Amino acid sequence: MRYELYYWPTIQGRGEFVRLALEEAGAEYADVARGLAGEDEGEQELVRHLEDDRLVTPPFAPPFLKAGDLVIAQTANILLFLGRRHGLAPRDEAGRLWTNQLQLTIADAVVEVHDCHHPIASSLYYEDQKKEARRRAEDLRARRLPKFLGYFDQVLARNPRGPGHLVGGRCTYADLSLFQFVAGLRYAFPKAAARLLDSRPRLVELHDRVAARPRIAAYLASDRRIPFNTQGIFRHYEELDE
Amino acid sequence: MRYELYYWPTIQGRGEFVRLALEEAGAEYADVARGLAGEDEGEQELVRHLEDDRLVTPPFAPPFLKAGDLVIAQTANILLFLGRRHGLAPRDEAGRLWTNQLQLTIADAVVEVHDCHHPIASSLYYEDQKKEARRRAEDLRARRLPKFLGYFDQVLARNPRGPGHLVGGRCTYADLSLFQFVAGLRYAFPKAAARLLDSRPRLVELHDRVAARPRIAAYLASDRRIPFNTQGIFRHYEELDE
Repeated sequence: MRYELYYWPTIQGRGEFVRLALEEAGAEYADVARGLAGEDEGEQELVRHLEDDRLVTPPFAPPFLKAGDLVIAQTANILLFLGRRHGLAPRDEAGRLWTNQLQLTIADAVVEVHDCHHPIASSLYYEDQKKEARRRAEDLRARRLPKFLGYFDQVLARNPRGPGHLVGGRCTYADLSLFQFVAGLRYAFPKAAARLLDSRPRLVELHDRVAARPRIAAYLASDRRIPFNTQGIFRHYEELDE
Repeated sequence: MRYELYYWPTIQGRGEFVRLALEEAGAEYADVARGLAGEDEGEQELVRHLEDDRLVTPPFAPPFLKAGDLVIAQTANILLFLGRRHGLAPRDEAGRLWTNQLQLTIADAVVEVHDCHHPIASSLYYEDQKKEARRRAEDLRARRLPKFLGYFDQVLARNPRGPGHLVGGRCTYADLSLFQFVAGLRYAFPKAAARLLDSRPRLVELHDRVAARPRIAAYLASDRRIPFNTQGIFRHYEELDE
């Protein structure tokens, strides 16, 4: 089956967690809004599908994935679906729930990273909430990131199959997402990330192991991988990194 | 099976979405931290389980549910599990994914309501981020709540089985959660909620229909239902409601 992924064409954003799973699965997919002539056309096409009022299961927001008759939204939900179809999660109930639980925890961390540059409103420019962003970033660096990274580090340490993966002995979509989270932190907060990762080598090793997987390595080297930038979730603003 | 729910003993919080599902299912469960002599003992017991370093699938935060050998965390993940076990979601893949998608969208809305009184940091008192909270609440009332409520209203309107439920023709955990979201908004933002719900009677009808379900009605009338208060997610601060 050829999937259709609908996401903003110029950022990694939440769509990137889905792109990584599709790439690792070797799935055939169209990144619909990126396939069009210009950025504007891509965004218009995305919005047209988002606002299609014939849909009985409408998405609230991108990303969403068309898989035959299914239209699936919410990143963790798309990954639950893809994980099952493409062996990117265990088949048994306990393993599936655990993978989903980790993904939802990564999603929570992603919201906090986003809100650190937009603590007041997504509808306002960063420049209009810079003072508040500075305060929130301070808490993110000092309390929240250590808590999240410490947690994932512990999960790796406690895995009975070894610290090579979050879940069992094989790569799951949670590993791919944790790779993306670590990569994003390094881009957005080079100083804080270096400090935080220095004492947690398991996270760096997981990042490197995922990056070296043949399909992921090929993807990262291709122009399908949009570079990090200051429109996405992970944004580098020097004043938020100390 | 007798479940054990672990959540903070004095607030509805995220645990309430799980409590509602357990109550609607007529499931036997212990609300562990509430079953103890005092609040302090309850919290200590909760934290002791949260920090149990023998757990190979540790929760990041409450709520979490023990079901036999399983320890399941993340509200939407617990509901995915309970929905399947207790007929609170469709059995087919498309229906399960759609219910999960709606639950994740409710979860997103819940984060935004929480962050409206804590836009800078959960570790700080409300009083230390009051000015920022006022700004964020303004955006929540003017843009985000209309968007979320408009979305759920549309989902009800488009349901081929009629606007009585979010998913198909039966009550799912997503209905229970939307009930809780509407109830919470009415407590936290009586003025704004009245205004926003006035033009969306389908949401009020869904709220009332869930509240009238025999098991839910019995629960709401019992002392198992903790009243809304200003320690939970939905908090009433007059200055945030206009």
